[in-house]
Amino acid sequence: MASVDVPVALLGYGTVGAAVNRLLTESADDIERATGHRLRLVKALVRDIDKERDYPPAGDVLTTDFREIADDPSIAVVAEVMGGLEPAGTHVLELLRGGKHVVSANKQLIARSGAKLFEAATSTGVQLRFEASVCAAIPVIKVLRESLVVTNVHRVLGIVNGTTNFVLTEMEGGKTYAQALAEAQERGYAEADPTDDVSGADAAAKMAILATVAFKSRFDLADVDYTGITEIDPADVNAARQLDMVIRLVGVAQHLDGHVDVRVHPALVDKQHPLAKVDGAFNAVMLQGDAIREITLEGPGAGGIETASAVIADITTVIGTMRTGFLQNDAAWRVLPKLPPGDNRSPFYFRMSVEDRPGALAQVADELARREISIARLLQHQNGDGAELHVVTHQARQGALEDALVALGELSSVHRRSRPLPVVSDRGVSELGWA
Amino acid sequence: MASVDVPVALLGYGTVGAAVNRLLTESADDIERATGHRLRLVKALVRDIDKERDYPPAGDVLTTDFREIADDPSIAVVAEVMGGLEPAGTHVLELLRGGKHVVSANKQLIARSGAKLFEAATSTGVQLRFEASVCAAIPVIKVLRESLVVTNVHRVLGIVNGTTNFVLTEMEGGKTYAQALAEAQERGYAEADPTDDVSGADAAAKMAILATVAFKSRFDLADVDYTGITEIDPADVNAARQLDMVIRLVGVAQHLDGHVDVRVHPALVDKQHPLAKVDGAFNAVMLQGDAIREITLEGPGAGGIETASAVIADITTVIGTMRTGFLQNDAAWRVLPKLPPGDNRSPFYFRMSVEDRPGALAQVADELARREISIARLLQHQNGDGAELHVVTHQARQGALEDALVALGELSSVHRRSRPLPVVSDRGVSELGWA
Repeated sequence: MASVDVPVALLGYGTVGAAVNRLLTESADDIERATGHRLRLVKALVRDIDKERDYPPAGDVLTTDFREIADDPSIAVVAEVMGGLEPAGTHVLELLRGGKHVVSANKQLIARSGAKLFEAATSTGVQLRFEASVCAAIPVIKVLRESLVVTNVHRVLGIVNGTTNFVLTEMEGGKTYAQALAEAQERGYAEADPTDDVSGADAAAKMAILATVAFKSRFDLADVDYTGITEIDPADVNAARQLDMVIRLVGVAQHLDGHVDVRVHPALVDKQHPLAKVDGAFNAVMLQGDAIREITLEGPGAGGIETASAVIADITTVIGTMRTGFLQNDAAWRVLPKLPPGDNRSPFYFRMSVEDRPGALAQVADELARREISIARLLQHQNGDGAELHVVTHQARQGALEDALVALGELSSVHRRSRPLPVVSDRGVSELGWA
Repeated sequence: MASVDVPVALLGYGTVGAAVNRLLTESADDIERATGHRLRLVKALVRDIDKERDYPPAGDVLTTDFREIADDPSIAVVAEVMGGLEPAGTHVLELLRGGKHVVSANKQLIARSGAKLFEAATSTGVQLRFEASVCAAIPVIKVLRESLVVTNVHRVLGIVNGTTNFVLTEMEGGKTYAQALAEAQERGYAEADPTDDVSGADAAAKMAILATVAFKSRFDLADVDYTGITEIDPADVNAARQLDMVIRLVGVAQHLDGHVDVRVHPALVDKQHPLAKVDGAFNAVMLQGDAIREITLEGPGAGGIETASAVIADITTVIGTMRTGFLQNDAAWRVLPKLPPGDNRSPFYFRMSVEDRPGALAQVADELARREISIARLLQHQNGDGAELHVVTHQARQGALEDALVALGELSSVHRRSRPLPVVSDRGVSELGWA
C-alpha cells in the first residue's frame, strides 16, 4: 500500500500533547511501518500561543481557533489531550459529528458523556478511541476489545489510581494519612488538590469505562458506587496487618446472573493476592473471564509520555483500520440491569469494641447468624477495660451486613464499631471477594 | 458495513481446534460485532476422520485432504492448530504462497521457520499472525505490535514456561526436582515426556518470537542461549532462600548498545521482584521501554481454550484489517547484531567450598577483583571442616566471571564450586539483572 501523509491535529498542547508530537516525530518510521502512512501534526489548539512549551511545534501549528481544525477537511484524526469537561466535550462532539476520528485521553469526559459521543461517532461512521483515558500506557481497552473478543469477561478488579496506592503503601510504613499524602505530593504522585484521587472519583471514572468495555453495557460515572481513602486511619492499616492483609483502593466491576455492579472502595487485600503486590504508584487491572481464567496487566497508570504512547497507539489503530468494519462500533450495544443496592456480596471486615464479659461475643455472633452471615476469621484483643474484636465474614450480602451492624450498634455491650470494608482474598473466580 | 459470511478453515482438530470451533460458534455474534462479518468453519484437516472428538464439527467439515483447503478460493483465513514442524510447516507455507491469511499457534514452527514464512506472506500480501504461539491467551504479541508501536522496547523479561515455574515453586516447599516434576505430571502441567519444557527449549522458542517482535530483528531458536532446570537441586533452592530469593526459569531478551541478546536460564530472582510472584503454572512477561517504563502481563500460559481464545483474536484481527495497510508487514524489518558470547552482563550468584583457614577468602576476592568483578553480597557458613561461601556479584561480564571461576577452581584452597546463576533483583532499567 503506498504511503500517504496523514494530517493529525491535537486539542491541547500541554505535557501530553508535547509528548504526542515528540513521539509522532521521532517515531514516524515506526508508525509508517505499522500503518503504511506517515503522520504529521498540522494543528494544535491552545489557549495561549505565546506560552513557553516543551518540544514546541513547528511553524503555524499552534492555533487558538478551533475552526482551523474542525473546518479543515484534510484532517482525518484529532487527539483530545486538553482534559476537563468543557470545552473538550463540545469540541469532541462537533468533530465526531463532522466525520473526524477522535482519540481521547479524557477519562472524565468518556465516563460522563460516552453515550452521547459514541452516538455521534456511530452516526457518521468514525472511530472514537480512548485507551489513554484508563491507566495511561497499560493497554487494557485494546486487550478487552480486540484480544478478548470471544471471552465472556465477568469480573474486572483493579488498582486504577496510583496516588491512593502510593499513599496506602506509605501508610503501611507507619505514616498517617496526612503524612503519606504530603509525601505523594512531594514526589509528584498527587496534585496540590488531590480531591479527585483520594475521593475515589478518578478510579470510579476509570472503572465506569472498563465496565462499559468489558460488559458491553453503558456505565456512567453516576452508576459507580465509590468511597475514597480519606477516612482510612492507622488503626485500619494495623488491623489489616494483623490479618496478613493490606488496605488498597480496589475497583470492582462484575457481571453476575445478568446484573452488573461497579464500585470503588478501600478493601482489605490478602498479601498473597496479586493486587496487594502492585508497587507504589503503579496500576494493575485483573480481567477474569471464561476462556482466559485471569489475565493481569500492570504498569505505570499515569505520566505524560506514557499517556502519549497510548494516544499514539490509538491513532495508529485508527489510521490502520479506518474504512474497515473493525471495532468501530460502540462497545456498549446492550443494556444490562444494575445490581440493586445492598445485593452486592463479598466477604467483609469490621471491628468493634465490646464489653469484656461473658455473653458479649455470643450476642455479636447471634446478630450475624440470624442474617445468615458466617464468620471466617476472628481476632480478639484486650483493649482497656473492654475487648476489641476483628471480624472477617464469609461471603455476605452487603445489605444484610449493614443491618447486622445497625443491630449490633444498639447492643449495650457494644461500645464502638467500624464501618465494614470488603475483603479481597483468594484468587479464582468462585472464591474471589465480591463474588 | 454489510455482514458477509467468511469461510474459515483449520489445520488440526485436537483440543485447541475443537475449542476454536466452539468459540467461533458460540461467539458468532460477538465476532460479527467486532468485525462486521460472520465466521464459519468450513473445513478442518485431520489425519483420521473417524476418531472420537470433543465438540465434533458438523457435516463434511473434517477432511484428510489438504487440497480441499488449499485449493478452495472461498477460504480466506486458515488457523494452524495441528502443532509439530511437519507437515504444518509445508502446509502453512503453501497457504501463504497461495494468498491465504494464516494464524498459527505453533511456537516451534514460528521460532524456526519465521523468516521463510514471513517472506511468503509478504510476497502475496497476506497476514501471518501468531499470538497463540506465545503464552496462550496473554496478548503480548498484540500489545508489543499495536500498543507499543512507538515505544522503544529494550528489554523483555519473562516467565514463559508454566511447567518449570510450577516445578521450581514446588521445590521451594522441600520437594526434590524428581518429586516436583512427578507432581506437575500428575496435575497435567507437564507432559509424560517433559523434555521440551524442562530443557528450556519451549521457553527459548517463545523468547525468540518475543525478541523478534520487540526488537524487529529476526531471532531463530538457534540464536537463543538456553539452559533448563534439570540440574537445579535442593541446595540451589536453599541457597536462594537464604538470600531472600527464589529460583525461576527466566527468559531475557535485550537490546543494548545496538546489540541484542536472548537467553533462557535458571536465575535467582529477588522475592520482591514481580517475576518471583508469578503463581505456579502461570506465565508473565515484563516489557521495558522508553515511553512505558515497564508493563507486565500475567496469565495462564497454556490450555486449550486459552490458546483458542488467542487464535480467534488473531482471526478477528485479520478479518477486521485485511485489505488495509495495518501491521501486515513482517515485524522483523532490520538486522541487529548479536551480542558476542561472554559479553552478556548480569549480577551472578555462585557458591564454593573453601578451606577454613586465613587467606582463603582473600584469594577468592582477589581473583574476582583482578577481573573487575565486585562482590555485592557474601554469606559464609561452616560446612564440615571447611567453609561454604555464597557469593552474589554486582554486574559482571559473564566471560570475566567464567574466567574467574576457572582460576578459582585451580586454587588449592577451593574444594568445590557451583556453576554461576544470573540474578534478577531490583526493578528499573538500570539496575536490572542482565543489564
